[in-house]
Amino acid sequence: EDAVFFEGIDAISFNANAGPTESLVYKHYNPKQEVYGRSMEDWLRYSVCFWHTFRGTGADPFGFPTLVRPWDDGSNSMANAKRRLRAAFEFFTKLGVKYWTFHDRDIAPEGSTIEETNRNLDEIADLALKLQEKTGVKLLWATSNLFAHPRYMNGAGSNPDARIFSYAAAQVKKCLEVAKRLGAENFVFWGGREGYHTLLNTDILREQNHLASFFRMASEYKKKIGFTGTLLIEPKPKEPSKHQYDYDAMTVIAFLKTYGLDKEYKLNIEPNHTTLAGHGYEHDVVMASAFGMLGSVDSNTGSPDLGWDTDQFPMDIKNCTQVMRVILDQGGLAPGGLNFDCKVRRESTNLRDMFISHIGAMDSFARALKCAAKIKEEGVFTKYVKERYSTFDSGIGQKIEQGTTSFEELEKFAMENGEPVAVSGEQEHCENMLNYYV
Amino acid sequence: EDAVFFEGIDAISFNANAGPTESLVYKHYNPKQEVYGRSMEDWLRYSVCFWHTFRGTGADPFGFPTLVRPWDDGSNSMANAKRRLRAAFEFFTKLGVKYWTFHDRDIAPEGSTIEETNRNLDEIADLALKLQEKTGVKLLWATSNLFAHPRYMNGAGSNPDARIFSYAAAQVKKCLEVAKRLGAENFVFWGGREGYHTLLNTDILREQNHLASFFRMASEYKKKIGFTGTLLIEPKPKEPSKHQYDYDAMTVIAFLKTYGLDKEYKLNIEPNHTTLAGHGYEHDVVMASAFGMLGSVDSNTGSPDLGWDTDQFPMDIKNCTQVMRVILDQGGLAPGGLNFDCKVRRESTNLRDMFISHIGAMDSFARALKCAAKIKEEGVFTKYVKERYSTFDSGIGQKIEQGTTSFEELEKFAMENGEPVAVSGEQEHCENMLNYYV
Amino acid sequence: EDAVFFEGIDAISFNANAGPTESLVYKHYNPKQEVYGRSMEDWLRYSVCFWHTFRGTGADPFGFPTLVRPWDDGSNSMANAKRRLRAAFEFFTKLGVKYWTFHDRDIAPEGSTIEETNRNLDEIADLALKLQEKTGVKLLWATSNLFAHPRYMNGAGSNPDARIFSYAAAQVKKCLEVAKRLGAENFVFWGGREGYHTLLNTDILREQNHLASFFRMASEYKKKIGFTGTLLIEPKPKEPSKHQYDYDAMTVIAFLKTYGLDKEYKLNIEPNHTTLAGHGYEHDVVMASAFGMLGSVDSNTGSPDLGWDTDQFPMDIKNCTQVMRVILDQGGLAPGGLNFDCKVRRESTNLRDMFISHIGAMDSFARALKCAAKIKEEGVFTKYVKERYSTFDSGIGQKIEQGTTSFEELEKFAMENGEPVAVSGEQEHCENMLNYYV
Amino acid sequence: EDAVFFEGIDAISFNANAGPTESLVYKHYNPKQEVYGRSMEDWLRYSVCFWHTFRGTGADPFGFPTLVRPWDDGSNSMANAKRRLRAAFEFFTKLGVKYWTFHDRDIAPEGSTIEETNRNLDEIADLALKLQEKTGVKLLWATSNLFAHPRYMNGAGSNPDARIFSYAAAQVKKCLEVAKRLGAENFVFWGGREGYHTLLNTDILREQNHLASFFRMASEYKKKIGFTGTLLIEPKPKEPSKHQYDYDAMTVIAFLKTYGLDKEYKLNIEPNHTTLAGHGYEHDVVMASAFGMLGSVDSNTGSPDLGWDTDQFPMDIKNCTQVMRVILDQGGLAPGGLNFDCKVRRESTNLRDMFISHIGAMDSFARALKCAAKIKEEGVFTKYVKERYSTFDSGIGQKIEQGTTSFEELEKFAMENGEPVAVSGEQEHCENMLNYYV
Repeated sequence: EDAVFFEGIDAISFNANAGPTESLVYKHYNPKQEVYGRSMEDWLRYSVCFWHTFRGTGADPFGFPTLVRPWDDGSNSMANAKRRLRAAFEFFTKLGVKYWTFHDRDIAPEGSTIEETNRNLDEIADLALKLQEKTGVKLLWATSNLFAHPRYMNGAGSNPDARIFSYAAAQVKKCLEVAKRLGAENFVFWGGREGYHTLLNTDILREQNHLASFFRMASEYKKKIGFTGTLLIEPKPKEPSKHQYDYDAMTVIAFLKTYGLDKEYKLNIEPNHTTLAGHGYEHDVVMASAFGMLGSVDSNTGSPDLGWDTDQFPMDIKNCTQVMRVILDQGGLAPGGLNFDCKVRRESTNLRDMFISHIGAMDSFARALKCAAKIKEEGVFTKYVKERYSTFDSGIGQKIEQGTTSFEELEKFAMENGEPVAVSGEQEHCENMLNYYV
Repeated sequence: EDAVFFEGIDAISFNANAGPTESLVYKHYNPKQEVYGRSMEDWLRYSVCFWHTFRGTGADPFGFPTLVRPWDDGSNSMANAKRRLRAAFEFFTKLGVKYWTFHDRDIAPEGSTIEETNRNLDEIADLALKLQEKTGVKLLWATSNLFAHPRYMNGAGSNPDARIFSYAAAQVKKCLEVAKRLGAENFVFWGGREGYHTLLNTDILREQNHLASFFRMASEYKKKIGFTGTLLIEPKPKEPSKHQYDYDAMTVIAFLKTYGLDKEYKLNIEPNHTTLAGHGYEHDVVMASAFGMLGSVDSNTGSPDLGWDTDQFPMDIKNCTQVMRVILDQGGLAPGGLNFDCKVRRESTNLRDMFISHIGAMDSFARALKCAAKIKEEGVFTKYVKERYSTFDSGIGQKIEQGTTSFEELEKFAMENGEPVAVSGEQEHCENMLNYYV
Repeated sequence: EDAVFFEGIDAISFNANAGPTESLVYKHYNPKQEVYGRSMEDWLRYSVCFWHTFRGTGADPFGFPTLVRPWDDGSNSMANAKRRLRAAFEFFTKLGVKYWTFHDRDIAPEGSTIEETNRNLDEIADLALKLQEKTGVKLLWATSNLFAHPRYMNGAGSNPDARIFSYAAAQVKKCLEVAKRLGAENFVFWGGREGYHTLLNTDILREQNHLASFFRMASEYKKKIGFTGTLLIEPKPKEPSKHQYDYDAMTVIAFLKTYGLDKEYKLNIEPNHTTLAGHGYEHDVVMASAFGMLGSVDSNTGSPDLGWDTDQFPMDIKNCTQVMRVILDQGGLAPGGLNFDCKVRRESTNLRDMFISHIGAMDSFARALKCAAKIKEEGVFTKYVKERYSTFDSGIGQKIEQGTTSFEELEKFAMENGEPVAVSGEQEHCENMLNYYV
Repeated sequence: EDAVFFEGIDAISFNANAGPTESLVYKHYNPKQEVYGRSMEDWLRYSVCFWHTFRGTGADPFGFPTLVRPWDDGSNSMANAKRRLRAAFEFFTKLGVKYWTFHDRDIAPEGSTIEETNRNLDEIADLALKLQEKTGVKLLWATSNLFAHPRYMNGAGSNPDARIFSYAAAQVKKCLEVAKRLGAENFVFWGGREGYHTLLNTDILREQNHLASFFRMASEYKKKIGFTGTLLIEPKPKEPSKHQYDYDAMTVIAFLKTYGLDKEYKLNIEPNHTTLAGHGYEHDVVMASAFGMLGSVDSNTGSPDLGWDTDQFPMDIKNCTQVMRVILDQGGLAPGGLNFDCKVRRESTNLRDMFISHIGAMDSFARALKCAAKIKEEGVFTKYVKERYSTFDSGIGQKIEQGTTSFEELEKFAMENGEPVAVSGEQEHCENMLNYYV
């Protein structure tokens, strides 16, 4: 029970002067350091995901597992599940993160009946609770894995078969209960199989209606049991399905609005999903925030030249800074956080690569926070953008914003004022300014 | 006034037995032939667009104009505008289409003031009305060009400058009036500059709010003047802007729902835009129809290996069939239609290429209509899909659809029924069936 | 030994009049039917791949196996390997294909030493030889799996470690020997891990040099043992590696030319790889054939809106026709063939989906062959294209082709002849002509 | 003749302490500062392109020109051409770059005959020579515009018409002569129309053969007139053509090797083209350099979420650093350079945006040079990579590199040495190390 899984690796500390090859040290992330009025750890709310970091094997569609972990015997036993969980909490603690996330099926093995599965989950939850209390690490969010088991191959809440829909409902019901018990601050839905592979066999409207029922009942059950975490939907455009119903932020918003669910759910945005949907890295974070729907962020990245989800650790300071600017603007992410839905490359087979990769990502976002804070504090961009829209602050512009004018009045204004002169967008000037800070 | 612009080209007729090199003949499109209970022309409602076909020059970002039209002297004169219009109506008539579409600035030159511009537009509208009456060709829709003039470089309804917003309002106001006069059955908004190039200089929320005001006022003015055409928004993900607010069907639905405009607007879907947004060819047509928002279709295509809008003539029978199945399913497109927002390749410099390209597209959709009708009549797919969802027709499935169950009841059902067996999706079987018909 | 694995499924026969829901029948593929001077089976040389069809499990990066085959107990035992092989030959025979393909590690389990692995492979090869002789099914090609085992995670012939390079050499050596024994008509190299994930840790030139050594030694060993099959390299741009050295046809040609290997190797083109490289479906088939390098085709397809290798069964008649035109033009593919490197969707879980999917693909290429033959026989495109280049058949054009002119002479010619008139490319006319045949 | 075109803008100076909104100053580019053994300007060899910066209008496929330059009256007159050239040299001088580049048709208007066109070009070249001598600005390269005029719509060297081929030959002949006179250090070929739009009307092999003839004659003529600049081909995958023959670096190398032209030509790599071909930003720079073919770089960037050539100013320090590492590794780019084939956004309408954009790009590459130099000087990566391949420095690895071993010997080695252990690729560690420097 007191086994040490990461021998030779101490708690990661901060040293601003460490050199390039020193890899088990933070050069930027200094949790208690105050930045823009709060501690770094308060702004960043880092979370480690259990699935990639403790269930990832390095297998890919063309290759067998490469990642061998000494504590994991590869079995589905409860004992193995418990060892993994203990190793995970040692990892969280040594890394110094305050949050973790999991799928129900990551942490506890599926049994041969729902009842057995639930008992397994409860037993593991007992241990998780104990470890949470012991370490102070908290649960950012839980989620149900409704995509890995063959029964869900045609979807869960959008499955053509009502029996599978029911099965999924039972699974989410239990997971909500466990989330409540573990004090989860959120609960996430990612619908990797909610979508279609071919329209030839699909009734899209019926599937969307069913999915909406599913979400409505989840929200009702949450309230019934007094779970106070935020419900979040995570958009992804495709993979594993050819087309997923939760394509991107705006698609999910359309769905929620159509079915009157937009007060019950917010969004968990993953930038690697955003770029797969054809947008810029920070686009969905920006859109979700603008519409008051940004709940949490799966802070990872992809390779722009690859068409699938690589779930890489975020290492680009400029991209991270753009995300942090939005987070500062909306006053923080809480109860959401920055969850590292990231996996080490399958070639990164050393145990210490698990640390190095998270450290790299945490340092990237810590640098980004410092950059974003400086940008906010100096106010250069805020002032620039405000000035750009200043014609809407009074006169005819103000009437437009207030909804108190009409095409007739605007025509009159336009005729009286003559040809308006277009103003330079100064994109390169703005890019230079950003480079000053990054 | 009675000049003939396409000498040597007669009205295109139908001949099912024409050979491969006979290009000025329909081999499939036979307007009065009844298919699935209506005439072909009623189902298809073909429309020629004025901009590509009569204002397209073949210029591209790397090359000068290639398309020389004998009636067009290249000037911005009213006389030239009138000659173009006469040539167009000869073209519509010889081709045998019943509808046309235009942007305000295609048909009439912009003057130095709004007033002069409006006078030009009125004068051309007089001629258009005369030609419409003479030929029986009708206006499927009109639209305002809010993207070509430099004043709109930063957007129209989402421009950071209230003066340009007002100018755009004046332009749409006038165009709605002209649309009404010409009996337009719809009015389209395509927001090529409503979006952003860089987030660094952009206040997305404020821009979306302004755009919503713009659409609200357009709808109010439409009602005020008694214009009864349907208002349509045309989604496009990007180009010319880096990101356009009307990214795809679901994005526009999200926007309309957010601002309470979803009863006032429907969608004009262009498959070449759909594929640029990362979806399958017919995806947005299907989504818009499922949500009751499909108003009209810009029936063109792109090259899947190219990342920009090529506006090619649709020639793929399978793709066209998938679109026609949706149209048959929703009982037709009227008052919308199939508008050929297509341009001849800039290398297709012969005058007869204008005809050949439209004929090819019309024959493709006519074949597609016949295929789709046969599929519907034989009912193979309808029956297949209905059966696939049959567990939702009674019992627990029906309760899910009716919204009269809960996670607790579903859990009970799932526990009692044991592991559900996933059913084959049979995609390849469905693809084979489709190949039988196409 | 005489077990029947596909009970209730008879040999697939040809019936041109079968209806849309009749799925275990050929509607187009009639092997002995003569088309364009040869039998269909001679032109098409269909081959079933062992890996997808008998080792595919339906697992994907987000889901567990879905495909359960009654003969496969999931173990790595030799007995299981033999049952699979017997099932496969029953499948080949009932389907009526003349060829199969395999990776060494598909058919025989890896042992704990090279020697044991080789013994396993020999024992399975004995059975394969017996089954080949019994059924008349032949081996189109064999290949070594140099990507699935963790040892190859950083490449085989391009691995940074000489010990792994050596290990891969030993594996290919053995596989060449087995290929010879089984009468393989070709031997394929697909280098899924020959490439890089990050340039930061990679010496590209050294890796390319090593890879060239590997190919040179393979060719030398082939000659030494008297194996007469064609050596083929299969291009793929990315996946599993971020960048693969065999990106596309031209990249492999550049590599082969650089290292003087272009006489020893030809290409095995897979259209799903071609489209992932950003080209049109038939592009690499066309390029490889033009440069005399087309050896064989992995006849599959992808979804143009997906950025990974879906290995779908080819169902698009127009795409298949474009490939068959090239094959007719170069007088056939032999000793290559059309290998179905395709997998049933993971949702296509019925045993008969294995047949239906292959039948659909075989019917698609059979229709395509008939279309391509008709196009060739009627000569419309041949004549059209020849005419288009006719200025190179005599005069200054002929001198250009013969290399007997110079810039000075050409300038003189150009000055004397004045402004040349560009001729319409007539793309839409050509597309219409193709639609006549497809 | 002594007119000042950029009033109020002085020569741009270096000030490391300038603030974020100070835009007409270098914060990093300090031309005479020594970095890694040479001056910054020697390493960077910046060049301004004439076409975007002095002929760009801001027009795009959906919009009219937005960029109004006071010296340009929009006419094709020689006087206008001369004013533009004078303005350009003032710009080069104030900016402080040492090189420029042009297309023949940018600088001098086309006449109605080849002879007149050539006279125009000569007259402008006279002025250019005078301005070069006066300012010390030199010509990095010249190129012929073989894509804008309608005559080239179907290609130049690959045109189906021998008369147009000849016309193109005459144009290049003249441009080579002018390049020689102006002391061009290179001559570039970019074949935007050398490719196809549809394979239906194209004889690919014949077109490639013709193109090879064209390049062979260009090289012969170059030698004949004693022009000593390097001939460069610039790859681009697509746009304006659907497929371009010079798809990427390896494709051009395949072409050059096939036709025996690889000693006569090198490559001019443009990263925005590289990313459009599906590669990482620096990929083609790396490949070309590894194969000894990197001649020059068009230092720009694109947006990874856009599928067309945006020719943006490079602002990403990490990307620029990766390019500079290659340039340092190969000992510099001379006689090539970093040419800004970049255009201000069409919304960047201020005259000073011309400066700001170039300054931003120059500062980005200057920062990148400093980062790359530090990386080289500290040797962290060099050492890391050398160690990774160390098994090839002796023993069996050395024999592989020397080509003195065989599959038999390697098999023996592998059998004796047992299962090799795969070594971690440590990608995240490498990424962290890079972040230390950038």
